Amino acid sequence: MTDDSDDAHEWQEPDRHEFDHDPLGHTDVWGGMTVGELVEEYGEAGIGAAAVHEAADVYAEMLADDDCTVFMSLAGAMAPTGMRSIVSELIRDGHVDALVTTGANLTHDAIEAIGGKHHHGAEHADDKTPQEHDEQLRDEEVDRIYNVYLPQEHFALFESHLRSEVFPVLEQEGTVSIERFTRELGKANAAVNEREAIAEDAGIAAAAYESNVPIYCPAVSDSVLGLQAWMYSQTSEFALDALKDMTPLTDLAYEADRAGCLLVGGGVPKNFTLQTMLVTPDAYDYAVQITMDPASTGGLSGATLDEARSWGKLKKEARNVTVQGDATVYLPLLVAAARERIDG
Amino acid sequence: MTDDSDDAHEWQEPDRHEFDHDPLGHTDVWGGMTVGELVEEYGEAGIGAAAVHEAADVYAEMLADDDCTVFMSLAGAMAPTGMRSIVSELIRDGHVDALVTTGANLTHDAIEAIGGKHHHGAEHADDKTPQEHDEQLRDEEVDRIYNVYLPQEHFALFESHLRSEVFPVLEQEGTVSIERFTRELGKANAAVNEREAIAEDAGIAAAAYESNVPIYCPAVSDSVLGLQAWMYSQTSEFALDALKDMTPLTDLAYEADRAGCLLVGGGVPKNFTLQTMLVTPDAYDYAVQITMDPASTGGLSGATLDEARSWGKLKKEARNVTVQGDATVYLPLLVAAARERIDG
Amino acid sequence: MTDDSDDAHEWQEPDRHEFDHDPLGHTDVWGGMTVGELVEEYGEAGIGAAAVHEAADVYAEMLADDDCTVFMSLAGAMAPTGMRSIVSELIRDGHVDALVTTGANLTHDAIEAIGGKHHHGAEHADDKTPQEHDEQLRDEEVDRIYNVYLPQEHFALFESHLRSEVFPVLEQEGTVSIERFTRELGKANAAVNEREAIAEDAGIAAAAYESNVPIYCPAVSDSVLGLQAWMYSQTSEFALDALKDMTPLTDLAYEADRAGCLLVGGGVPKNFTLQTMLVTPDAYDYAVQITMDPASTGGLSGATLDEARSWGKLKKEARNVTVQGDATVYLPLLVAAARERIDG
Amino acid sequence: MTDDSDDAHEWQEPDRHEFDHDPLGHTDVWGGMTVGELVEEYGEAGIGAAAVHEAADVYAEMLADDDCTVFMSLAGAMAPTGMRSIVSELIRDGHVDALVTTGANLTHDAIEAIGGKHHHGAEHADDKTPQEHDEQLRDEEVDRIYNVYLPQEHFALFESHLRSEVFPVLEQEGTVSIERFTRELGKANAAVNEREAIAEDAGIAAAAYESNVPIYCPAVSDSVLGLQAWMYSQTSEFALDALKDMTPLTDLAYEADRAGCLLVGGGVPKNFTLQTMLVTPDAYDYAVQITMDPASTGGLSGATLDEARSWGKLKKEARNVTVQGDATVYLPLLVAAARERIDG
Repeated sequence: MTDDSDDAHEWQEPDRHEFDHDPLGHTDVWGGMTVGELVEEYGEAGIGAAAVHEAADVYAEMLADDDCTVFMSLAGAMAPTGMRSIVSELIRDGHVDALVTTGANLTHDAIEAIGGKHHHGAEHADDKTPQEHDEQLRDEEVDRIYNVYLPQEHFALFESHLRSEVFPVLEQEGTVSIERFTRELGKANAAVNEREAIAEDAGIAAAAYESNVPIYCPAVSDSVLGLQAWMYSQTSEFALDALKDMTPLTDLAYEADRAGCLLVGGGVPKNFTLQTMLVTPDAYDYAVQITMDPASTGGLSGATLDEARSWGKLKKEARNVTVQGDATVYLPLLVAAARERIDG
Repeated sequence: MTDDSDDAHEWQEPDRHEFDHDPLGHTDVWGGMTVGELVEEYGEAGIGAAAVHEAADVYAEMLADDDCTVFMSLAGAMAPTGMRSIVSELIRDGHVDALVTTGANLTHDAIEAIGGKHHHGAEHADDKTPQEHDEQLRDEEVDRIYNVYLPQEHFALFESHLRSEVFPVLEQEGTVSIERFTRELGKANAAVNEREAIAEDAGIAAAAYESNVPIYCPAVSDSVLGLQAWMYSQTSEFALDALKDMTPLTDLAYEADRAGCLLVGGGVPKNFTLQTMLVTPDAYDYAVQITMDPASTGGLSGATLDEARSWGKLKKEARNVTVQGDATVYLPLLVAAARERIDG
Repeated sequence: MTDDSDDAHEWQEPDRHEFDHDPLGHTDVWGGMTVGELVEEYGEAGIGAAAVHEAADVYAEMLADDDCTVFMSLAGAMAPTGMRSIVSELIRDGHVDALVTTGANLTHDAIEAIGGKHHHGAEHADDKTPQEHDEQLRDEEVDRIYNVYLPQEHFALFESHLRSEVFPVLEQEGTVSIERFTRELGKANAAVNEREAIAEDAGIAAAAYESNVPIYCPAVSDSVLGLQAWMYSQTSEFALDALKDMTPLTDLAYEADRAGCLLVGGGVPKNFTLQTMLVTPDAYDYAVQITMDPASTGGLSGATLDEARSWGKLKKEARNVTVQGDATVYLPLLVAAARERIDG
Repeated sequence: MTDDSDDAHEWQEPDRHEFDHDPLGHTDVWGGMTVGELVEEYGEAGIGAAAVHEAADVYAEMLADDDCTVFMSLAGAMAPTGMRSIVSELIRDGHVDALVTTGANLTHDAIEAIGGKHHHGAEHADDKTPQEHDEQLRDEEVDRIYNVYLPQEHFALFESHLRSEVFPVLEQEGTVSIERFTRELGKANAAVNEREAIAEDAGIAAAAYESNVPIYCPAVSDSVLGLQAWMYSQTSEFALDALKDMTPLTDLAYEADRAGCLLVGGGVPKNFTLQTMLVTPDAYDYAVQITMDPASTGGLSGATLDEARSWGKLKKEARNVTVQGDATVYLPLLVAAARERIDG
């Protein structure tokens, strides 16, 4: 900036510059544009929009790579908040080779499979204080997950489902792996859903069962599913092995020509998916993560994928992108854009 | 949860329950779906997706209400990161009645209007440390805005533009309002852009000038535009009045049958847009905000729109929605969805 | 605000008002003030400072209540980032009755117990790009946890420790609970630390062993500790039961006169600590949580303690406070303030 | 990690390693420790605690450097939430050479100077819904700032104060700079406070007036102070110049031997403090910022100080630290620690 340029009265052509090779465009939008078109337009922009564009690009490349084994992690309240179909459809279409998730997601997935419903609620009620709101929900036996309600009776129905359809089979087998448990759950969900003509889509565990995709759930005891398993184990031979699943998961990583991961949320599912590469000579070739957490928390949930390189979880040359934001918005956006690309 | 239900071996129809009236569906996605369809699917879900759906609904209602005067605030690095066309098109289509923004957005908007370009860059370079990266940019006279680069020569060209096209006109008028300044800037941007056949879209200030939409910029001195104005004022009669604009802005609010606001980011533009209602008997009927900040910061940028009610900035019955996330992603998403609704 | 008050030239005593009963003071600070004094001064202020003050108050009350059983959850990278002594001292002083944590914290705690060291590092190196930085760390066999480094050789030494001191004892016992595993680990850590005269403080697991405090680690397989356990189990009788620990943890909750929890971070440790109350008729009387996550993520890590009320995890009348921020700053601050109160 | 080390039954001395030079210690805390001792202990740790330790170190060095001109920016709701004394004491003790702040902070500072009080409130009331809470506050004429209440009558008293003590003086002078306005406000605050024997500390503007420290407020129109100024200007000669202050501020930067800045919050105060260096050949030698925003927002409020290097706002060799967190907690902590160091 100079003080003496007031004689520069004519418009000047800017000099060429080494940074001129990749100018930003402008994101245009129009009524009726497709999601894929929107994501292309994000590619014109900076900050988070550019990351969404690149994430869709890497994810589509990963799905289109026939030699790539795709691991998906799913943390957070995704099944109870409406993200269940997206995941089950990805599984049915062959876009997931192994799923790592939480007991909570499997619990809420099963509740819907057997006819339960989650309901639109509110973080705060229109006619009660926050504390009164949650107290009244408690009195009426309705559990709240942020802005979603679930009547507690569905946990009792879920308990019946497990005790009639799942545990009796498994207790014959003595101590079983957690993946064996989630597989039987998926089979039971599919069976009840079909028998009772409940819904077209029996959900995540059912889709995984029918598509022969394993579901790993290392922290299963940390959920209502786990509490039920523990209660049943008190009076039966049923037991769960905490370590067994690491063998087939590691084998899958070992045998992959190339490996990619879609990490939805952080927590145990993210770390478990990444740590698999610590015990194989290989590492991920592609990685896309959606997380709410900035790296500055220092926790694993927000840790960058570069950090994962120092541990050997990602290949040095791996394509990787982090999208920071709400997975209930970003997962549908990325999947719709990737599907438009690979199906189109 | 009970311990004695192991005889409940049959599937049971769930009881009807008062919370059963509004069940969540499942967000479905498919290749080729439109943005409006995606936002409809968000309406099936919870957490942030539900907020995006509601924000699009309120925004479309606000735009479709012919008696509603629409105020738009635009903070953050939106013009330099690719969000310029979306805003100029909203202005040209009559969807903005007054814009409140920052000097930075007007600076970067003008730089593009006269032929400058921002460039895709990176927060961190591939071959340098973070500090070396920014030092090298400094040596090469390139400014960085997160992952966007701007060669500094464009500030010199911008200075010439102001000194040849804008300031000479204004100094005839003595002390002028800031809106008078932004109007003349828009006129000059439009003129140069057309004369030099630079681009189809001369940008935000040009669109506002041509559409007779005022642009308010209360913190103009806090920008390169302001620094240029100050330097010019040192050797001329040119001066800016810090208070004058509040009269026409307040009049606009006063005369509105109904008033709505789209708040993009926080900062001065958000507060200035809201505080206008402190000096009128009226208040906003509709409000949609996109912000990165949670309310727990205690700052105005993340403050809820309920808090604005205590000050009388929003009507008690006003429809309002907060979407928490990156405006480079959410603004295009909301505008595309609203346009699909109102144009469709 | 009125326009006609320019005759109001005299200073006026403000009217009394129903909101006048609890005026804010001003937070004063001075060189040499104690942490307890600082936290008292926070009590004069609003926003987050007020929450820190209240959290220290509830935590001190919980610790001073002799009939209160205190559960502590510890997620995140706390052991590798210097928070190990604070936790071990709380255990030794009787301020923790049960600890719920991650396999990662137990891994890094043991590494220090047997003579390993974590090192001050950097998120980004001074002389390398972020990717080169992590690649070089990979080449030099150093793992990075945000701004902390750990040479990988310590994992090999940790492996030797487990294989010489821990697994041989446990494999005699067949399938064991995870708490049995962490107890033997604590015993071994204490033994090696003393035998080799490594440090005054043998750490968290050792303190827990010596103080007869159980450590629960439901997601143990999601850690290097879990990977080691799995590898050993491949060639031995050693096995871990995923469900067994829920019995003594539930019993502890059941038997508590009053119950309180200090939740450091979210994740599995937070939820596991809270869900214990789902299978007892009781609920927490006190709860303090430190989390980086705002409630708006919709995930459990950031969920409010009010939400926990709807599930029956907290008593309706429970005192509870959420502090939003970095646990490496807030945990020491809260513990120092509470200790000043109860020891003073 | 190896699979064949089960013969490694003896404890081994770890190899020396190039990363062994700077081991982490453990943060210890004890009842009665000083804030300076706590911050020293943070220096043993990683993640955010390490940043707090370094920030206190840089800030103390900046204050102890007699040749360093210290600029302080103050955004956010700091005056109404109890941070007023800390700032006025820093000014009185010569630790601030220029203050850049918001009209809101000056408004709330003046309200307390003339006898008004802010009050401890709540984000949500105990006996009302969030919307009802804010509606009732509206009905009772109480404004809410997150968890702080302010009866609106104080705005009327503030108006009287301005109209009796401040505007009549200034309108004699015609168009004045904003700094001239804040100086007269400080003088009036001090005078009324002393005349009415209101409080020992007449606050920020009074301290600045008495200490001859300029207060810059580039976005003054965006506040109740600005609304009052505008209303008075409607019927008088009083007017504010939007640009004039840049001359003395730039001169101060120009004349500084060394320059340092303490940036509290982002917004206009942060940018205005930094941009001053765009029009001087110099740049900051020290910079400490406290911000809630991660860099990934792309906005200026969360922008790293490295980014500021690319613009020439910081010297290449400048010591700089970013602390991410709540300023109501971190500002008192840093100031107490720095005072213990430099006064001790």
